[in-house]
Amino acid sequence: MKIKDKSIEFFLEELASKAATPGGGSVAAMMGAQSAALISMVCRLTIGKDDYANVETDMKDLLKKSVELHKKLTAMIQADVDVFNRIMACYRLPKLTNQEKEQRSVKIQQVLKEATMVPLDCVHACVEAIKLARVAANKGSLTVVSDAGVAVISAYAGIKSSALNVYINTNSIKDQVFVKEKLLELDALLEGISVETDEIYQIVKEKL
Amino acid sequence: MKIKDKSIEFFLEELASKAATPGGGSVAAMMGAQSAALISMVCRLTIGKDDYANVETDMKDLLKKSVELHKKLTAMIQADVDVFNRIMACYRLPKLTNQEKEQRSVKIQQVLKEATMVPLDCVHACVEAIKLARVAANKGSLTVVSDAGVAVISAYAGIKSSALNVYINTNSIKDQVFVKEKLLELDALLEGISVETDEIYQIVKEKL
Repeated sequence: MKIKDKSIEFFLEELASKAATPGGGSVAAMMGAQSAALISMVCRLTIGKDDYANVETDMKDLLKKSVELHKKLTAMIQADVDVFNRIMACYRLPKLTNQEKEQRSVKIQQVLKEATMVPLDCVHACVEAIKLARVAANKGSLTVVSDAGVAVISAYAGIKSSALNVYINTNSIKDQVFVKEKLLELDALLEGISVETDEIYQIVKEKL
Repeated sequence: MKIKDKSIEFFLEELASKAATPGGGSVAAMMGAQSAALISMVCRLTIGKDDYANVETDMKDLLKKSVELHKKLTAMIQADVDVFNRIMACYRLPKLTNQEKEQRSVKIQQVLKEATMVPLDCVHACVEAIKLARVAANKGSLTVVSDAGVAVISAYAGIKSSALNVYINTNSIKDQVFVKEKLLELDALLEGISVETDEIYQIVKEKL
């Protein structure tokens, strides 16, 4: 059974349990998915309103993007669990002979690279959510502007949370070219995102 | 059907829909609940480990508190929807006669005060989660320290999101003594919380 099909209560109980998954990576993706969903809500409650006829095209375009992002981030809730389970499976591989040790190590390193990409993709998606949240805050209906504010806050939380999972995985990767490349990519995504989040939050606060 | 019993996918779809609830208030409580749940996970994966025998009592105490908080914040996911529906019901009250207008207005003001307390209680609970996350980050097993990091980030997101809902409601309340009191209470809770969050995040990052 996929996480998305589980109840909220059960998901929270599983998070809280001794089970290794789901964990922080799924929470990060969930925060991103909630962000995208709230942006869609802002769009849907703006489109068709006479007072917002002048932004109708922008809102329809925004909705298309937020729906896409919602889908992508929902899939990432599961992706984090799946890649974690693949890592665990690698650690359980036999390591009696030198050949087995070598094969196991190669496999672990390979899956750790995949495991780095999962939270890094989540950072990309949440950065996109922040951009969409800015449009929602600027152009969406005033009656739901606070939801655009929650959207930017939860996307930012998704970014900061996913960054931790990028750091953990890169710390165990031997290929320093890969590590350097991915950490530079992450740094570029993080650059200025805190200021941008604060700016959008202020836009919302002043409109309340 | 309560939100906690709905699937993750359905909850996200409802968020994204035109329906007024659930919205940002439920997302804020959900982020808080995820924070508390992750703290419980850190405790459960630390308790019983030989290397952490010296913090066993602290972890058991922390677990008791995080489980309590998890329960409280899960209930708040629903509380936001319930109070919003009560406000909507008040706005639908008849307002043909002066007496009806007066009664309707009194009722709206009363429920707006309740609606202010829901996100304010969520801020209180998320501030508590940040304190618990600090203990988890400092004393929990290194293997799950990143989850303590995600816990602090999601609790902070719960605070910032709930604050917006406090502002919206107080903006419509006429009783300025109540408004001033609640905004002062909120300010006191927000004071230093951003710095505290950053500190705990740094503790985690350095332990990865």
